[in-house]
Amino acid sequence: MKRQRGFASDNNSGVHPLILESIVNANTGHEVGYGDDKYTEKAIKNFKNLFGNDIEVFFVLTGTGANVLGINNMGHSFNSIICPATAHINIDECGAPEKFTGMKTISIPTDNGKITVKDIRPHMHGIGFEHHSQPGIISITQPTELGTLYTPDEIKNLADFAHSNHMYLQMDGARISNAVASLDMPIADFTKNCGVDVLSFGGTKNGMMYGEAVVFLNKEISQNFKYFRKQGMQLASKMRYIGAQFNAFFEDDLWLKNAAHSNKMAKLLHDAVKDIDEVTITQAVQANGVFAIIPNEVIEKLQNEYFFYTWDEGRSEVRWMCSFDTTQDDIIEFAQLLKKLIKEKK
Amino acid sequence: MKRQRGFASDNNSGVHPLILESIVNANTGHEVGYGDDKYTEKAIKNFKNLFGNDIEVFFVLTGTGANVLGINNMGHSFNSIICPATAHINIDECGAPEKFTGMKTISIPTDNGKITVKDIRPHMHGIGFEHHSQPGIISITQPTELGTLYTPDEIKNLADFAHSNHMYLQMDGARISNAVASLDMPIADFTKNCGVDVLSFGGTKNGMMYGEAVVFLNKEISQNFKYFRKQGMQLASKMRYIGAQFNAFFEDDLWLKNAAHSNKMAKLLHDAVKDIDEVTITQAVQANGVFAIIPNEVIEKLQNEYFFYTWDEGRSEVRWMCSFDTTQDDIIEFAQLLKKLIKEKK
Amino acid sequence: MKRQRGFASDNNSGVHPLILESIVNANTGHEVGYGDDKYTEKAIKNFKNLFGNDIEVFFVLTGTGANVLGINNMGHSFNSIICPATAHINIDECGAPEKFTGMKTISIPTDNGKITVKDIRPHMHGIGFEHHSQPGIISITQPTELGTLYTPDEIKNLADFAHSNHMYLQMDGARISNAVASLDMPIADFTKNCGVDVLSFGGTKNGMMYGEAVVFLNKEISQNFKYFRKQGMQLASKMRYIGAQFNAFFEDDLWLKNAAHSNKMAKLLHDAVKDIDEVTITQAVQANGVFAIIPNEVIEKLQNEYFFYTWDEGRSEVRWMCSFDTTQDDIIEFAQLLKKLIKEKK
Amino acid sequence: MKRQRGFASDNNSGVHPLILESIVNANTGHEVGYGDDKYTEKAIKNFKNLFGNDIEVFFVLTGTGANVLGINNMGHSFNSIICPATAHINIDECGAPEKFTGMKTISIPTDNGKITVKDIRPHMHGIGFEHHSQPGIISITQPTELGTLYTPDEIKNLADFAHSNHMYLQMDGARISNAVASLDMPIADFTKNCGVDVLSFGGTKNGMMYGEAVVFLNKEISQNFKYFRKQGMQLASKMRYIGAQFNAFFEDDLWLKNAAHSNKMAKLLHDAVKDIDEVTITQAVQANGVFAIIPNEVIEKLQNEYFFYTWDEGRSEVRWMCSFDTTQDDIIEFAQLLKKLIKEKK
Repeated sequence: MKRQRGFASDNNSGVHPLILESIVNANTGHEVGYGDDKYTEKAIKNFKNLFGNDIEVFFVLTGTGANVLGINNMGHSFNSIICPATAHINIDECGAPEKFTGMKTISIPTDNGKITVKDIRPHMHGIGFEHHSQPGIISITQPTELGTLYTPDEIKNLADFAHSNHMYLQMDGARISNAVASLDMPIADFTKNCGVDVLSFGGTKNGMMYGEAVVFLNKEISQNFKYFRKQGMQLASKMRYIGAQFNAFFEDDLWLKNAAHSNKMAKLLHDAVKDIDEVTITQAVQANGVFAIIPNEVIEKLQNEYFFYTWDEGRSEVRWMCSFDTTQDDIIEFAQLLKKLIKEKK
Repeated sequence: MKRQRGFASDNNSGVHPLILESIVNANTGHEVGYGDDKYTEKAIKNFKNLFGNDIEVFFVLTGTGANVLGINNMGHSFNSIICPATAHINIDECGAPEKFTGMKTISIPTDNGKITVKDIRPHMHGIGFEHHSQPGIISITQPTELGTLYTPDEIKNLADFAHSNHMYLQMDGARISNAVASLDMPIADFTKNCGVDVLSFGGTKNGMMYGEAVVFLNKEISQNFKYFRKQGMQLASKMRYIGAQFNAFFEDDLWLKNAAHSNKMAKLLHDAVKDIDEVTITQAVQANGVFAIIPNEVIEKLQNEYFFYTWDEGRSEVRWMCSFDTTQDDIIEFAQLLKKLIKEKK
Repeated sequence: MKRQRGFASDNNSGVHPLILESIVNANTGHEVGYGDDKYTEKAIKNFKNLFGNDIEVFFVLTGTGANVLGINNMGHSFNSIICPATAHINIDECGAPEKFTGMKTISIPTDNGKITVKDIRPHMHGIGFEHHSQPGIISITQPTELGTLYTPDEIKNLADFAHSNHMYLQMDGARISNAVASLDMPIADFTKNCGVDVLSFGGTKNGMMYGEAVVFLNKEISQNFKYFRKQGMQLASKMRYIGAQFNAFFEDDLWLKNAAHSNKMAKLLHDAVKDIDEVTITQAVQANGVFAIIPNEVIEKLQNEYFFYTWDEGRSEVRWMCSFDTTQDDIIEFAQLLKKLIKEKK
Repeated sequence: MKRQRGFASDNNSGVHPLILESIVNANTGHEVGYGDDKYTEKAIKNFKNLFGNDIEVFFVLTGTGANVLGINNMGHSFNSIICPATAHINIDECGAPEKFTGMKTISIPTDNGKITVKDIRPHMHGIGFEHHSQPGIISITQPTELGTLYTPDEIKNLADFAHSNHMYLQMDGARISNAVASLDMPIADFTKNCGVDVLSFGGTKNGMMYGEAVVFLNKEISQNFKYFRKQGMQLASKMRYIGAQFNAFFEDDLWLKNAAHSNKMAKLLHDAVKDIDEVTITQAVQANGVFAIIPNEVIEKLQNEYFFYTWDEGRSEVRWMCSFDTTQDDIIEFAQLLKKLIKEKK
């Protein structure tokens, strides 16, 4: 029988109790809709505390919405978006970026989910040539979809390259809390201070119910965003409940505590399985995900008890994500079952 | 000083306590994301209880999302959408229908927010002529944005006309609960049984936090909807919390009780102000909204204490919406203030 | 039997011999494609001779392409385009503006195809309100689709109003030559000097084979146009043949001679039919079209011999367009047949 | 000084005299616009002579228009288009496919411009998974942008794979005449009979002035095309002149004679340069293009006298295209200059 708790995705977990409490506390009669309320106001202040006052921040409903609308404001339909092949915008958003922005996505294969200036250079051609989509945006994910992290220097290199080529740098931060917790430095130090222009700041994968933020670290790009948000069907009516969630998220560093926990659980999982026979860890475990190659015939049996995704069928690679509510016992039991299944198959 | 509670919109109210409780109760550990959970399953069953099993229902995040994605599945980009000039899709969605579907909106001026076959006929030209957007969808709102109701016969006439012209009938039901409560008949009797093809079923304006449903009463039109929902950025990650809300919504007819209450409050408001000097009620009060012309110099003063919108500046017409949590005292105090302000101005 | 020559549209005529000759003369071996050739260069110079050097001009393939791409450069997808209900962009382009630009079209009913500031004012609401498509562009046609003309003052009023409301004024000049010939003044005097921002300058309806020009009279708006032209599938490969056509078009004022002729033919037609029993001219004949109400049973019989379109079936109104190659004999024979058919029906 | 004739592109050549003559001959007074004329009718018949009567053919204005509109009819916005990285739709249409269709392009690097089923298989994942753009169309170019040819078997393999995966096969035939001439078999034998669903049939690169055809070999896909063509701004007003061109094109196999000639010139060029020191031919010369690596310092000098494009700056690779009007002398002089420049640099 399938257990309720698994390692499929950090959005399979529920809502952190303190965030839920904040929602309940916000339920006190009328508030003007669409963001003109005190919870939203405070949430914006919270973001300015992190990044400084010279930013603009807008709340949207989904991570796809944050990425698409952020990117939309950074270019024109004739631009291209350069990103790693593993980028969520490239493989997990059903073409939402192309549909809304009209831009072309140029994806670069990588070993670890990270791209460098060297990878991008070969795509910098046809500049000024109207037959060719003009490179306009570099998009990276921090931490990456493979659970790895860019260093601040790596990010700065990309931003500098982008800006010296009249491009912008967007960061998909669906799991940005995990990056902050893992890098153990102020968030601005590897985003705004490195030259990131727009950040999709995610909450749902770290204990929120719904709601993400588009943070314009480069304020100039934010022009007209409110109209595109509405036209893009991403304007929440009872906005206060998103604000209330973010306020609990930032209260007493809950976001970092949650993230540090799920990061720690991933490390634990890594340590618990890395020496099992026929298990090969394929990516550095720098956030809350563990990627491993395990025997093919074991995958299905393991999935009979735990939810998780096969990442690359071809090479029998799986992905295990840890959440704010993953427990040490979850890890131990899972690793034991894995060991047992591998043993049995022989 | 502005009071917290006003008559601006039924989305200024909060979440009904029973719905909030249902959210809290759903917060029990892991559930698979994106709708493959037991709360969503039950919510779908709830909709089938209302409309029968030969429907398809999908949950989305916003009312605009429900309208745009429902309409998108009903035609091609070369089609036109015929609707009343007051339609939410025409004036309150910032061009979201045009942007996502590529269709043209043809809006028809009305006195009461309702269109008839007679109104539509003059727009039925250029059929088969490739230079002209082909009429593809008739869109009506029930209750209308002016608080009025279509009778089942009126709806059936529109549906029959649509179908005999190879068109579909869409119903924007952002406040559909109020229509059911007011018409006092099974919802299917003025939707599915009258030939409505797709219904946007709203919850947020009647006590939910977020989440709406696209109900394909004509199941054949629902093909590929799940892809368009994702591409349209309307797929909720932790879907269970939408399901949980709808389940509380339908439990013990909470939706109808809430709606009956806000309808009743609107009637009360109507009765309380209709005989005030210089107040003219402009629309039949058939749901939860009251439209009135009041002296222009009174509007601002009244707005200093209560939130509400001016509907038509040109003729000094205002809109007052009642909610599930509007009280009799709210009405009495508001009407007294209105009377006082009008008296004072003389 | 149907005669080859009729009054259906000024695009049913062929190519003026001098324009065809210019095409033939341009067929002298290789030229770089996409506009980097001497014919295109000269054509651009011809436009600058008309409007001054502070313009930008680009050639496209169709009238729809000129309108859509010109408008696209004047706003964002959340803007609306305000135009007369009879506008070509509203009823004859199958939703091409909505599809490419994502903008909403707001159409205003008129008696004579012309809109005024007074007509537009009621649509200037919701400014800054993100739920509402923001009025961004006023689009007029000169001469109108009903064969009438705006005076320079009327155009200036619209441009001033547009600019004082952060909007732009676009002019659909599919038949702009006929306006110049009829107004008998330099083209700049009722376009650039009145504040028109972008002009679709048509050639095909006045003796060219294909090719139109988007003239940015307000040069600042032209930014990035070349990319949108390519992405909009409107970049001609062997561009020289469009340039060659325009060069013949402007040589010795051929465009004005052609237009003056078709205007004159329309006047002749008007004079020849206006006193026929049961014929009512419905629009001032200020360019090359004649609109008339004639007995319904006569329309089909007349159409058996001549191509022309019924304009408004409901009121038995027809449209007769004259071309650069319409002859006095064409007019006389047509008027005689009309008179005969009306007589016979009694 | 730059010579007028070069090897930049087969669209730098002019119009074949017989095609121009056919245009002139079609200039005989009035014809109904938009395709309802005898020239278009005959042109359609010409296509049916090639492919059989169970096809649909539509004329458009540009090659980009043919590709985008053909592909648009083959899927939905949530589909993906799989093509070689060198595909014109991928690198030379400024994102027109993404903008109009909303689809995602998945490009596959190749050595010779050709893709195989083996290349495509790794991209066939996420089928039925709404987060992932659903593979919908395979697009190939015949001959490829690198001057190489697919064999009928290779095409059949791709078509079979496409159809067994609920996908369609589109062929970009901008230079399809060169493929027919080179393969020396009936066109249907490597298109329709192999399972190609939609063919972009080009004329402009083989002696026409403008105009391409979208040939629906799978007739069922053609539904509603006429509306999309208009909405896509690709409907020619004076359509007869496109029909007239195609009629001359097919008369006495002019298209094949032209193509055979340009193919032959490419072979000649290949033979004339292949043994020059430091010249490496990089692609099989199977159509009218020659790709070669030549010393970098020679490129610019050669370009001072002849127009041609550098294909891959990184590896000093150039592209030389031959046209229907390229002469043996052109080839000899060019090869001599190349030889001389290489010699001089030492």
